[in-house]
Amino acid sequence: MLNTPRLLLVGLLSWYGHASSVELLSAEDLARATELREAALEKNQAWDLLESLTTEVGPRMAGTPGDAAGVAWARAKFEALGFDRVITEPVTFPVWERGTEAAEVVAPFPQPLTITALGGSRATPEGGITAELAHFRSLADLEAASVEAVRGRLVFISNRMERFRDGSGYGPAVQARSQGAIVAAAKGGVGIMIRSIGTDDDRLPHTGLMRLDQPTVPAAALSNPDADLLERMLRRADSVTVRMELGSRWGGEYTSHNVIGDILGREAPDEFVVIGGHLDSWDLGTGAIDDGAGCAITMAAAHLIGQMDTRPRRTIRVILWANEEQGLYGARAYHQAHLTELEKHIIGSESDFGAGRIYRFSSRVKPEALGVIDQISQVLAPLGIVRGDNNAFGGPDLSPMRMSGMALASLYQDGTDYFDYHHTANDTLDKVEPEALSQNVAAYAVFAYLSAEYRGDFGFRLGLEPEQLMGPQTQRE
Amino acid sequence: MLNTPRLLLVGLLSWYGHASSVELLSAEDLARATELREAALEKNQAWDLLESLTTEVGPRMAGTPGDAAGVAWARAKFEALGFDRVITEPVTFPVWERGTEAAEVVAPFPQPLTITALGGSRATPEGGITAELAHFRSLADLEAASVEAVRGRLVFISNRMERFRDGSGYGPAVQARSQGAIVAAAKGGVGIMIRSIGTDDDRLPHTGLMRLDQPTVPAAALSNPDADLLERMLRRADSVTVRMELGSRWGGEYTSHNVIGDILGREAPDEFVVIGGHLDSWDLGTGAIDDGAGCAITMAAAHLIGQMDTRPRRTIRVILWANEEQGLYGARAYHQAHLTELEKHIIGSESDFGAGRIYRFSSRVKPEALGVIDQISQVLAPLGIVRGDNNAFGGPDLSPMRMSGMALASLYQDGTDYFDYHHTANDTLDKVEPEALSQNVAAYAVFAYLSAEYRGDFGFRLGLEPEQLMGPQTQRE
Repeated sequence: MLNTPRLLLVGLLSWYGHASSVELLSAEDLARATELREAALEKNQAWDLLESLTTEVGPRMAGTPGDAAGVAWARAKFEALGFDRVITEPVTFPVWERGTEAAEVVAPFPQPLTITALGGSRATPEGGITAELAHFRSLADLEAASVEAVRGRLVFISNRMERFRDGSGYGPAVQARSQGAIVAAAKGGVGIMIRSIGTDDDRLPHTGLMRLDQPTVPAAALSNPDADLLERMLRRADSVTVRMELGSRWGGEYTSHNVIGDILGREAPDEFVVIGGHLDSWDLGTGAIDDGAGCAITMAAAHLIGQMDTRPRRTIRVILWANEEQGLYGARAYHQAHLTELEKHIIGSESDFGAGRIYRFSSRVKPEALGVIDQISQVLAPLGIVRGDNNAFGGPDLSPMRMSGMALASLYQDGTDYFDYHHTANDTLDKVEPEALSQNVAAYAVFAYLSAEYRGDFGFRLGLEPEQLMGPQTQRE
Repeated sequence: MLNTPRLLLVGLLSWYGHASSVELLSAEDLARATELREAALEKNQAWDLLESLTTEVGPRMAGTPGDAAGVAWARAKFEALGFDRVITEPVTFPVWERGTEAAEVVAPFPQPLTITALGGSRATPEGGITAELAHFRSLADLEAASVEAVRGRLVFISNRMERFRDGSGYGPAVQARSQGAIVAAAKGGVGIMIRSIGTDDDRLPHTGLMRLDQPTVPAAALSNPDADLLERMLRRADSVTVRMELGSRWGGEYTSHNVIGDILGREAPDEFVVIGGHLDSWDLGTGAIDDGAGCAITMAAAHLIGQMDTRPRRTIRVILWANEEQGLYGARAYHQAHLTELEKHIIGSESDFGAGRIYRFSSRVKPEALGVIDQISQVLAPLGIVRGDNNAFGGPDLSPMRMSGMALASLYQDGTDYFDYHHTANDTLDKVEPEALSQNVAAYAVFAYLSAEYRGDFGFRLGLEPEQLMGPQTQRE
């Protein structure tokens, strides 16, 4: 199947497009989806939900009182919105505390520095680390460095993330955050400071998780202006000495919850179209764009479907995932808890890329289902959404399900500004445009409703390798 | 003279414009000014100075080690740049320390708040103030409120500054900062939090001086997103309780210095054309736009004039003023120290509005000198600078001299973004555009050089009331 010539595939798709098969959506289905789309654009429900979450709960870092307040908020909102079933499922994880954060240039040009601990960092000794900087332009440069260049020093990695609409600057840049402290530790470094993985020039550092599967050193991110400052100092001084103090620590376990709201299917209530976002956030902002927006968009979309005269054929399941930020704990717990019914999860898409407009719709389905994906695309098109490829990511919290072969879609959002605010104190409600949020709701409502009405499956293949699941690439941009 | 009919005045100006009087600048003067202008645009000297100041010194709050480092930097730079005379004059003032800053919503929706103490604030009691908010949309609303509405409460003023190119949103908005704590104290309030006087949406509060001539309460600014948050809470809750803790205090005296660099005049070395900026900054940022830029622009402009084959007719005096931010201490000390030679200060202009391009040139001179101002304007015009009125401000540090009747000019900068960063941690070098800085240098070089070459005076009138000094309004925009 992987070798199906493209022409043949195109021919098949054309045929599907004209056939009156049960495998395709009816004109009535498409008309109702169009009504949903237009209704969503006239409402501000996602905005109202996001306003409520950021105002009444605020930051929701895993294991904090805000985590518990977020879970209580989500339960209450699902119930108030008339979801047919509200479920909470336990998610247990170790608790990380941020603690104190301070840094300053000691010599040759004393100045304070603005930093924040990377998620998972250990503490420095009391009073902090004072050491000469060892400067590297990238993680690769640090990896290539000799032990002598690093031993006893405070590593500084200065690579800057590039800005793209699809956020593709993140992957290359974030390696410094995820692996820098491990490489620094292996070479005898005493700590690490990285330039924030962000595209802004605000004096607000970006936190985010680091890898913890090998020994690490205390690790922090500098705001972009602070990283610029150190680079300027290093251009004129042979040696720059910095003090860094972190009080962060791991301590104890906490049990939070995935919060699930179901709009029950009229014919197949035990088959799920999964949408959602993650309910936890980092602590620095109020988690408006990461990922209050995703929660609000998908709650509003499912609620809108629930307002129709009849229930959709399958269940629309909104999962608000616990502790995504510190390692997909909610995602892994859900996967484990539902191992015996994975194949009932027909297709899914998580919203976790901020609050920008959706511009592309990608799928990850078996080739036979591409005709239906095209039908969904046609209803999405008036929202300014183009058809993407058949290699959708699906969102971080669906990755365990992806590895098990679940069919997925991605409604890719414009992320041009997302990494200006991501994981910073600037992740607040004012960064969200209400109209863009409604466009997202419209798209999720269309996708979820039509996926629920579709009588066929999208291609669940338990136990296959991911490569075997992709089907032909049909990049259509 | 004030009643001179406008027509007669216009006639006089026309006559001046065509006369070959010693009162007008020669074609050679204008040609040399044009050369200066073009040379400035090809250099990056102001950028290099600003890069040096922000990197090697950083924040320069009055009375801190950064203040002393700034003075040492300025002396050394003037000398390295070959200024003919470098002078430091003592400026003594009380020292204010920022101390700890913390705030949080206690009820009904617990969340941390981002604040910074207003300059000059007293401390709260140990452990902070915990009180219900008393919300007012403006200082006027607070002034109109009953004592009962304020007594025992933490006042919150939520007016938002408007964005304009000329910064004219600042004046109306800043009243809340300067007077709020006095009004709150008079009505029995226990503290005050104001929405930051700034046009941004960053989670970085704006500090700035408050009036201290009457009893005050502890006072802080919230970032704009935090003020939004409180407003949202107040829309849904009858009572919002906040805890605010400030450790700020006044303690001891400090003697800093005005640092003066002179390019000595070839004919009238004891007559001064004064330019400059203030060397101190607030502590949160690195004082790049407020007012490292003004220092760098005027140092570079005078240096450029000093590079000419001959010295200008009068002395170009660059004054880098001490402690502008906490009450014009440097300005007042200079005025006092030079009382016997005020009339030797022929004309002046301070650069203290960031690093944006200059778009307007205003004067404050006697009517007879308007013809020369027009000539200067014509050399400035290719820089995109239009002729303004004859009621120039001249800059904050020249206000004591203004009150004594000194002639002034203002080279008004585009301040559209200035109040996004003003008095915040975001006041860093990356906010400055090198080309805009060079345009500023070109304008200051033209203004200072031609004012120094001009053989007439601009209208010093010792002892006259300001109203008598203005001359007819000649708004030409």
